[in-house]
Amino acid sequence: MGLELYLDLLSQPCRSIYIFARSNNIPFEFKHVELFKGSVLGKRPPAGSGAEQPRAGPSDSEGAGKVSLLKKVPALKDGDFTLAECTAILLYLSRKYNTPDHWYPSDIQKRARVDEYLSWHHTNIRANAPKTMWIKVLIPLFTGQPLPSEKLQEVMEGLSTSLKQFEERFLQDKAFIIGSEISLADLVAIVELMQPVGVGCDIFEDRPRLREWRRRVEDAVGKELFFQAHEMILNIKELSNIQIDPQLKEQLAPVLMKMLK
Amino acid sequence: MGLELYLDLLSQPCRSIYIFARSNNIPFEFKHVELFKGSVLGKRPPAGSGAEQPRAGPSDSEGAGKVSLLKKVPALKDGDFTLAECTAILLYLSRKYNTPDHWYPSDIQKRARVDEYLSWHHTNIRANAPKTMWIKVLIPLFTGQPLPSEKLQEVMEGLSTSLKQFEERFLQDKAFIIGSEISLADLVAIVELMQPVGVGCDIFEDRPRLREWRRRVEDAVGKELFFQAHEMILNIKELSNIQIDPQLKEQLAPVLMKMLK
Repeated sequence: MGLELYLDLLSQPCRSIYIFARSNNIPFEFKHVELFKGSVLGKRPPAGSGAEQPRAGPSDSEGAGKVSLLKKVPALKDGDFTLAECTAILLYLSRKYNTPDHWYPSDIQKRARVDEYLSWHHTNIRANAPKTMWIKVLIPLFTGQPLPSEKLQEVMEGLSTSLKQFEERFLQDKAFIIGSEISLADLVAIVELMQPVGVGCDIFEDRPRLREWRRRVEDAVGKELFFQAHEMILNIKELSNIQIDPQLKEQLAPVLMKMLK
Repeated sequence: MGLELYLDLLSQPCRSIYIFARSNNIPFEFKHVELFKGSVLGKRPPAGSGAEQPRAGPSDSEGAGKVSLLKKVPALKDGDFTLAECTAILLYLSRKYNTPDHWYPSDIQKRARVDEYLSWHHTNIRANAPKTMWIKVLIPLFTGQPLPSEKLQEVMEGLSTSLKQFEERFLQDKAFIIGSEISLADLVAIVELMQPVGVGCDIFEDRPRLREWRRRVEDAVGKELFFQAHEMILNIKELSNIQIDPQLKEQLAPVLMKMLK
């Protein structure tokens, strides 16, 4: 049994793994998980099922709940080995498939720069950018009512501070975060920053340096692959037409509200 | 010029780096940064000073603001190379000083387990455990009044959920997170979990599995080093006697309150 990746391309970490695997010609079976219909936000997978092999066929939408140690996407299954967490999966793939050096350079200082970004990312870009989707799309979908505009403004201010640091401290006047070539750091950053774009907060619009960097990242992975991976998020408004199970709505509305406190 | 580490042992990431460097006999100059007196919570370092060489002597307490790309501790300076972020620094040291394999195993699956934990840690243990210190010590110190007990209860509930996952999904019935030997994952976890202990929330008390793991970690790095690194946090109450500049109090109180929202 070959490599299986459990992904939902609406999720930004899933997109980074998808783009990385595809642009490096890593052979894998795409196991599609539907975050908003399947087990991740909905039914809980049975306890103690962490090591089970996911069933094939129509039940695959629940597979990631079983395959992932942490019961969420993205998840990797490689034979008997299962792995969660985006960064861990990207690094595992880079090692196992011996991808080109620039993704995670063997140069000790460049590699440290990638590690530094990946760590900073968690509590900065990642802590702010995805909230735009929760505010503009998901919370209204689950609660049936829009959030006050001050909430979005607050998140956009936090994101602006992170973007300023991103430009001044990481990107500087370089083509990519570690210099002249793309690395995992750029990939992890770009997928996150496309989340606000998808919901109508184009953070690239007034930031020429960031916009040029985005163009270079698109070119490096290939525009076709980039837009294919982002097709769903760039058409996120279609999600507002999906039917959410009323019981699920009731369960999740308070959880979603709490996430934004 | 040799390796310099800018640390304040009140900070849990700093303790992991200190313990790692000391237990692996990595030679370094300890540059003591005082988080609550120096530049990190107080005066801002001048803009654009990221690449400056920190002055020696009495002004060292402000050095990390200059040495660190991200203007906070921990920070590393190795010749002209400066690095921020705990994980990045630990990995850099492990590579540069070729530390024993168990810290970050060359086995691809074990290494992936360390990466998986380090990534999960950010949004789980790290997101909850340090708040206990803010609530019990720092916020009262800066605002002059205690927080309502519900706030602490809320944080302890979040921490309990993370600890349950930590035990069931990461530790399981193993001696350490990746198996029979200590790794960077255990080190990063233990220093974080000592933060609540220091402020009187002994999360090991009713958790025998966690307590046994703590004992093994202490043995693995050496009890003397472990307690030396934790001396300040285990005597945190002495911090309540320090004089905080009134202007700094006024500036920081709202920031601290916001952090806990």
